Amino acid sequence: MPEQPANPEPAHHNIDSMLSRKFGKEVANYFSGNPLNRVGFLREKHDFLDQALKHPSTSFLPCNNLQPLVKTGYKTGDYLQFVKYDEIKPIIGDGPYDLTEKEVLARYNSEQYIPQMIFLGIDEKDKQGLTYQGKNEYTGAPYFAIDVTPKAGVKDACEKLIKSLEERGLTFAPGRVMEIDATHAALYAEARMLLDWNQRNPYCGACGNTTMSVNGGFKRACPPKDLAKEASQQDRPPCVTRNRISNLSFPRTDPTVIMAIVNSSNTKILLGRQKVWPPYWYSTLAGFAEPAESIEEAVRREVYEEAGVHVGRVVIHSTQPWPYPANLMIGAIGQAIPEGETIDLGNDPELDDAKWVDFEELKFSLKVGTSGLSEDPGPDYKEGGLRLPPSTAIAHQLMQAAANGFVTEGAKL
Amino acid sequence: MPEQPANPEPAHHNIDSMLSRKFGKEVANYFSGNPLNRVGFLREKHDFLDQALKHPSTSFLPCNNLQPLVKTGYKTGDYLQFVKYDEIKPIIGDGPYDLTEKEVLARYNSEQYIPQMIFLGIDEKDKQGLTYQGKNEYTGAPYFAIDVTPKAGVKDACEKLIKSLEERGLTFAPGRVMEIDATHAALYAEARMLLDWNQRNPYCGACGNTTMSVNGGFKRACPPKDLAKEASQQDRPPCVTRNRISNLSFPRTDPTVIMAIVNSSNTKILLGRQKVWPPYWYSTLAGFAEPAESIEEAVRREVYEEAGVHVGRVVIHSTQPWPYPANLMIGAIGQAIPEGETIDLGNDPELDDAKWVDFEELKFSLKVGTSGLSEDPGPDYKEGGLRLPPSTAIAHQLMQAAANGFVTEGAKL
Repeated sequence: MPEQPANPEPAHHNIDSMLSRKFGKEVANYFSGNPLNRVGFLREKHDFLDQALKHPSTSFLPCNNLQPLVKTGYKTGDYLQFVKYDEIKPIIGDGPYDLTEKEVLARYNSEQYIPQMIFLGIDEKDKQGLTYQGKNEYTGAPYFAIDVTPKAGVKDACEKLIKSLEERGLTFAPGRVMEIDATHAALYAEARMLLDWNQRNPYCGACGNTTMSVNGGFKRACPPKDLAKEASQQDRPPCVTRNRISNLSFPRTDPTVIMAIVNSSNTKILLGRQKVWPPYWYSTLAGFAEPAESIEEAVRREVYEEAGVHVGRVVIHSTQPWPYPANLMIGAIGQAIPEGETIDLGNDPELDDAKWVDFEELKFSLKVGTSGLSEDPGPDYKEGGLRLPPSTAIAHQLMQAAANGFVTEGAKL
Repeated sequence: MPEQPANPEPAHHNIDSMLSRKFGKEVANYFSGNPLNRVGFLREKHDFLDQALKHPSTSFLPCNNLQPLVKTGYKTGDYLQFVKYDEIKPIIGDGPYDLTEKEVLARYNSEQYIPQMIFLGIDEKDKQGLTYQGKNEYTGAPYFAIDVTPKAGVKDACEKLIKSLEERGLTFAPGRVMEIDATHAALYAEARMLLDWNQRNPYCGACGNTTMSVNGGFKRACPPKDLAKEASQQDRPPCVTRNRISNLSFPRTDPTVIMAIVNSSNTKILLGRQKVWPPYWYSTLAGFAEPAESIEEAVRREVYEEAGVHVGRVVIHSTQPWPYPANLMIGAIGQAIPEGETIDLGNDPELDDAKWVDFEELKFSLKVGTSGLSEDPGPDYKEGGLRLPPSTAIAHQLMQAAANGFVTEGAKL
């Protein structure tokens, strides 16, 4: 039966420290604020995962082609919907954690389809949750994500579950999920990024053989044997990821910079737009950090490449996990140097347009012109006015900080 | 002939903006401050790369098993050493950029060993450099890195070059390169991270077939054909990375958090040590960010996992590229919450020890007890005193910022 949302609050909900008094409330961007303790150090312990799997307090987030379960017709502020162990048992079969991780790896069979599960963590605010004794004692309600995309040997079982969920007024949220309650958005971001990473990386980048998901979905190992082959062919060639710790075995997150750039007199902000966006829609500039760049350098490079503007000092504002597919958005405020403010789109012609916008216009549009990309702007918006991203976007937070005088009034984070 | 170092200064050398007046001088950590314009938008243009390859102003950094060319007996503050086109020509052969990138991809042959080259960028301060007319005009001295590890078809050519270099008093710096001049350290970081990434990822994670380095070493493509096979077998199976932009085609950088944690009364700092470190040696805590975490969340999680301490507000201080192998270190200052200061190593027993150190002791040791891990501390150090990392480490910068009152006096970055 679908569960009522636990609606847990972030663990750091009431931060009161000298840092917070000095710098103000921390900006927790959408997709951050995960309410769970991931207890990542327990992921390799199958006795723990087995207990977590079967505990009555445990919730499973079913995802179909990476889209999460919600109520049909869900709207802003709604919650994810979860199911219980009995409902996913026909999909995962008996005891996926009955053997140790080492034993499971030794029995690897590349022809066997195992529906991907992700162990998301435990909600420690649930005192009726599972209690597990490791080196310390941990109590909380476990959360898993499970891929219920109908395919391979579990096609029928998945279709049956999906049908049953639909009959109960549940569905899989379409498109980019930006409407659900913020704490659940963080849960979903964790689920989506791990499901997607496992799905994108079926083969080992180091040796080209298939890999296997372990560590509750947080690692892909390159097994030394494959039982799908004939006995004499089961040993696989050596692979460097087996001999030492390799980053290839662990999830990938791409650091990305996104920046509000103000002019040297701190009266205007630099905004750009992509061709595919609705008319009048602008946002801050953004791009991937490259290897061997500090964030500050990446900000200066991207602004130069995309808009020809030269940036001096850069201050990091806040960060946002972005699960489409695997980004960490690092938000910064930067200031152009006086002789470097001329816009030039000719270096890397990614943008349809870039322009300097007066703070007055910016502030007005932050009030009347914000919405999701596929939504209409609010009732006070007038055709032709500047349109901007909604408050769930870190771009919006950066623009707001710039308009509020982040530069002249100090670190109003 | 080995070149004298260009010794270029970072492009943002004289930053004077309101942000810099407000927040102070930007901390440029070791391995950041790259003096080159990477002109990444020109990487796919083989006519540009071909001109860059052959221009008299061009420098090549030879790397042997990822180690860069330096003077024999090099010491702190020394520079990288470069060679000219004529010297690497026997290794790379004629005209690696004679054909367009598209043509090169269409002629992919998995049995052909191509020594890895990385196009690092141009030094625009060299007005005698190459001038290239793209959408804009660019002038500067080009820099490449080239893998001269003796292997496959170029074994002899590489060995010959290495011998000739050794005869001229040059060698490949051993171990972790942390002594060379800071601007050259940034060049080397770029070279090393890209060479290493190409080397680690010979196979496509999406389909398991071999990939090919393109875009001046900044991309690995999964070619649709392989001319090494018989004519009827040359077409390869479909691969998702060919149909749409995939992160698997681009270099990977792992975001890492490193944090100076102060206690709630701002009088002590939390330091930890690993078992393999020399006696009395401590540093700040650090760890990989996980998918779907903000940096602030990753800091709190890592400190809890490794030391059991609960952190409230987190402020990002500065960042550092870390080329061993592919990290972006994001440095932060955080403050423990009053009821969360008890140290507990039992969650994730990674550390040999963790302790709270008085600011007075910290400041004293920052003066007398710092050195590289394999070096002796300075002459004023007394056995038994706290030992700390050198100023090239972001950990050192974070400790210094904490000791200088970062928390109570505001964002003294």
